[in-house]
Amino acid sequence: MDRIGMMEAIKALSTKRTNAMYLNDFFHTWQKTDDELAATFLVADILRSMRENNISSKVFDSGLAISLFRDNSTRTRFSFASACNLLGLEVQDLDEGKSQVAHGETVRETANMVSFMADVIGIRDDMYIGKGYTYMKEYSQSVYQGHLDGVLEQRPTLVNLQCDIDHPTQSMSDALHVINHFGGIENLRGKKIAMTWAYSPSYGKPLSVPQGIIGLFSRFGMEVSLAHPKGYEVMPEVEEVARLNAERSGGVFTKTNNMEEAFENADIVYPKSWAPFAAMEKRTDLYGKNDFEGIKTLEKELLAQNANHKDWECTEKLMSKTKEGKALYMHCLPADITGVSCKAGEVSAGVFDTYRTPLYKEASYKPYIIAAMIFLSKFKNPADKLKLLLERSTNRIF
Amino acid sequence: MDRIGMMEAIKALSTKRTNAMYLNDFFHTWQKTDDELAATFLVADILRSMRENNISSKVFDSGLAISLFRDNSTRTRFSFASACNLLGLEVQDLDEGKSQVAHGETVRETANMVSFMADVIGIRDDMYIGKGYTYMKEYSQSVYQGHLDGVLEQRPTLVNLQCDIDHPTQSMSDALHVINHFGGIENLRGKKIAMTWAYSPSYGKPLSVPQGIIGLFSRFGMEVSLAHPKGYEVMPEVEEVARLNAERSGGVFTKTNNMEEAFENADIVYPKSWAPFAAMEKRTDLYGKNDFEGIKTLEKELLAQNANHKDWECTEKLMSKTKEGKALYMHCLPADITGVSCKAGEVSAGVFDTYRTPLYKEASYKPYIIAAMIFLSKFKNPADKLKLLLERSTNRIF
Amino acid sequence: MDRIGMMEAIKALSTKRTNAMYLNDFFHTWQKTDDELAATFLVADILRSMRENNISSKVFDSGLAISLFRDNSTRTRFSFASACNLLGLEVQDLDEGKSQVAHGETVRETANMVSFMADVIGIRDDMYIGKGYTYMKEYSQSVYQGHLDGVLEQRPTLVNLQCDIDHPTQSMSDALHVINHFGGIENLRGKKIAMTWAYSPSYGKPLSVPQGIIGLFSRFGMEVSLAHPKGYEVMPEVEEVARLNAERSGGVFTKTNNMEEAFENADIVYPKSWAPFAAMEKRTDLYGKNDFEGIKTLEKELLAQNANHKDWECTEKLMSKTKEGKALYMHCLPADITGVSCKAGEVSAGVFDTYRTPLYKEASYKPYIIAAMIFLSKFKNPADKLKLLLERSTNRIF
Repeated sequence: MDRIGMMEAIKALSTKRTNAMYLNDFFHTWQKTDDELAATFLVADILRSMRENNISSKVFDSGLAISLFRDNSTRTRFSFASACNLLGLEVQDLDEGKSQVAHGETVRETANMVSFMADVIGIRDDMYIGKGYTYMKEYSQSVYQGHLDGVLEQRPTLVNLQCDIDHPTQSMSDALHVINHFGGIENLRGKKIAMTWAYSPSYGKPLSVPQGIIGLFSRFGMEVSLAHPKGYEVMPEVEEVARLNAERSGGVFTKTNNMEEAFENADIVYPKSWAPFAAMEKRTDLYGKNDFEGIKTLEKELLAQNANHKDWECTEKLMSKTKEGKALYMHCLPADITGVSCKAGEVSAGVFDTYRTPLYKEASYKPYIIAAMIFLSKFKNPADKLKLLLERSTNRIF
Repeated sequence: MDRIGMMEAIKALSTKRTNAMYLNDFFHTWQKTDDELAATFLVADILRSMRENNISSKVFDSGLAISLFRDNSTRTRFSFASACNLLGLEVQDLDEGKSQVAHGETVRETANMVSFMADVIGIRDDMYIGKGYTYMKEYSQSVYQGHLDGVLEQRPTLVNLQCDIDHPTQSMSDALHVINHFGGIENLRGKKIAMTWAYSPSYGKPLSVPQGIIGLFSRFGMEVSLAHPKGYEVMPEVEEVARLNAERSGGVFTKTNNMEEAFENADIVYPKSWAPFAAMEKRTDLYGKNDFEGIKTLEKELLAQNANHKDWECTEKLMSKTKEGKALYMHCLPADITGVSCKAGEVSAGVFDTYRTPLYKEASYKPYIIAAMIFLSKFKNPADKLKLLLERSTNRIF
Repeated sequence: MDRIGMMEAIKALSTKRTNAMYLNDFFHTWQKTDDELAATFLVADILRSMRENNISSKVFDSGLAISLFRDNSTRTRFSFASACNLLGLEVQDLDEGKSQVAHGETVRETANMVSFMADVIGIRDDMYIGKGYTYMKEYSQSVYQGHLDGVLEQRPTLVNLQCDIDHPTQSMSDALHVINHFGGIENLRGKKIAMTWAYSPSYGKPLSVPQGIIGLFSRFGMEVSLAHPKGYEVMPEVEEVARLNAERSGGVFTKTNNMEEAFENADIVYPKSWAPFAAMEKRTDLYGKNDFEGIKTLEKELLAQNANHKDWECTEKLMSKTKEGKALYMHCLPADITGVSCKAGEVSAGVFDTYRTPLYKEASYKPYIIAAMIFLSKFKNPADKLKLLLERSTNRIF
């Protein structure tokens, strides 16, 4: 977008109701209104255009963003760091290994102790069913209370960088990619997306990506087809969300145990491995009991179960079943690529290579989506602020 | 404070002699004059008010702060990071594991090599009696010399983030909490503080907190009562400091081996575990000799010794002995809470819960105290600079 | 330099052709023209003077620099962080342990995923012959392509923080130290530098320092004498570079197996240990085959081979052979100092102590050299930008 485009986007933004986002957290997309999601996409696009046009969007003269990663991460870690830097926040990582957190202190205490000057908290905690989101909520309530009590000068807002239920920074980036690919959110109506399981030689991959996708894409009037082998069910609560969303938006939410059926005439395919919800629940219980023998046994079972479905691979042949044989292939990366990163995996090397550039573009939206979430949680009148930034037009690079 | 309050505080600051703090380190509170401590409290309060009023106190356009933690830390690490960010400095952590420091280079060399653009150095080194402060002094002398020799463009000043002798960022934050709680430093005169040992199931906790408290609070005309079981003596040099301070300030410094006696009629209680000075000295020797068998034996002895004093717990019953039964309970956190973080600990869950909010507030002063120490070491005329910042009134958040 | 000196240096800079540095990487000094090297020295000196005069050279309002250290580092890590901070970039370290990189993703993918908002990438990868520079080139090509494809908003430029072939930030800092020590680049003509091997009780030290020195200092019309025991040859390609450089610049490149001969009448000596090129090649092969037994055997052999040359030590006696007995002693640090960091090493304690301050000054140029490399890769008209910065004269410290 050039300057005129940005001004138009800001005008569109000013028509969206975003009051409830102000000083609030971003947990699950289905907790947000259509206006709030639309505003997030708009702000992300505007911030991206500002950077492309060398206009600084630094809105914090100083300030901290606390990150807490309870699982390894490259993409999300760097996206969060990029988003914070773009707005003027410095990331301070809470490395639980280096801290005294292990000494048995409560979430409430840790949350307050690291947040004295924190404007934003980003948390990734996706490993255990029933734990990640619960932890985030407790953290958020703790700093909210800390602010009320006069301990914290500001209320730090929280961005869910992946929990056990949703992965909103991923699904929103994916959606913005699709929106821009198809030339507007209105063009998604009637399009078909296949969110399908795919084979991977590793086990225990989180459910938050497929859940995030069906929970969000069902809001755009699309046909959302969830496909997986029997036994790889996702959380029923999120299926219910997708069903309701589809109904309201004039779309359809369907389920199948046949990968080809899902690919049939699809405009978009998203083949990705995940663990069965029931197995993840079992694993959480075993960890709770410190039953390491049980965990080992479960791992073996799950890998064996996966191995029964090696045919769930996104191949050229399967791609040919999609709309005109050229559906948009998506993945949150890194993908398990057959013959490249593993013997047999989620996708053939040929398909992956064909879509490499769109895949990287898909990922490139994440920093802007995160920045937009932060922006909307910090400014009551986001459109006014963006207008002022555009008028100020400080060069990002001198 | 509002703008008028800040202006008054700045005026008060302008009457304090702070010349000797300029381009100097902050090691022990008893090396500082009353004016210098008063100035530190004033600057901390002003910086806090500026942040509350969305006024940026960023005084460094660029610049680095080096942190070196030789012991785990959450609170102090994040407080240091917050303080630096508030002033515009970026923290660069010297992680001795990741560096080549182990290759046998001298303190002088490391100090210079990491300080080319460092404005501030923060060090925590509290584990070994006779080592931490010695290390800090050597570091400071090295960078001072490096600046004289033209190696370093600036003289980095050092903030003691806890050594074997004092923990000034803790004791000063504690003091500022107490000052604000009682409505002014002058209101502390005649008040009684009980700095008492308390039982903990862990061993080898540093002495720097109790030493820091008796070395500082004895300057305010208070009755400072140090209580611990026999055998848990602190460093005699610091007791001597407390004795002299009390004499000069018109207060009293007393010692007892009876917890209840210390609590009797106290306005403030600070029950906290620490290791006996003599045992810490012995441990330092054993580490020096790499006598790991000896260390294990010593640990066992110390834990057994601790276990003789499980009755040194801050309970509701004990609290009822204090002034009107409602003394201010303090702790540097994390506390060993009976039935919460351990079976038997320093404080009952009931007492801890009652004082949770004041405890968090107590901790919340640390970033501002550290920022004030840095500020005073970098500006010859701190009052003038703060006045200019207030006149400039750049928004922290756009 | 004062303001007039800086203006003169900027004028000198404006006469240098630096177009090809714009949006380009800095890999090896011999890929750069004389003008480009001269410009780098000028910009480094100007940036240093600006800092000494409290003038901010912050040219990025926001922006990231990615660092990737595949070997431990103190000096280079802190120099890179300092350089980036000076210009306004925040360093984000790509810690391969904490990331998902191990999951088998390609260089191309990682490079793009961490570079969405990266202006600069700094990489140290010096361990394996034939690998480090290759990796850097692949990384650079990946982000170049990513920018063309619209994945990355900017083309991140790469700074080689040490590869298997060259160590340009070291050799350029060394050169700037020498230039300032002798009062100008023109005064180096005819001077003799002895780049000699020295004994160390450790093995496998990279070749990039001696290679960097002979590859760069041969451009100044100097006599460059490379000395090492038989069997400690460096890469023949780099010797060829030195030979050609010397020819073109009117200097000489000589080789000897006699340390004293190299020191004879030298103006500068640089005694430093390194591993034989052939052995490093062999080690790379063994690592490639995961032949850990072979690696252990090789280590033993190399240490035994080193031990045959304990007489290659820079002593007072040897220093007396140099020009008037007072050649400038150089080292990239940390040095193996006899009787200090090891029993027998590269240099006697006496020589090292005599030259401690010049050694620290030598190291102090690195942050500015790195900053200059970044500056020249980001601005088409570096002289104009520096002039504007000088006119702006924002205080670095308020």
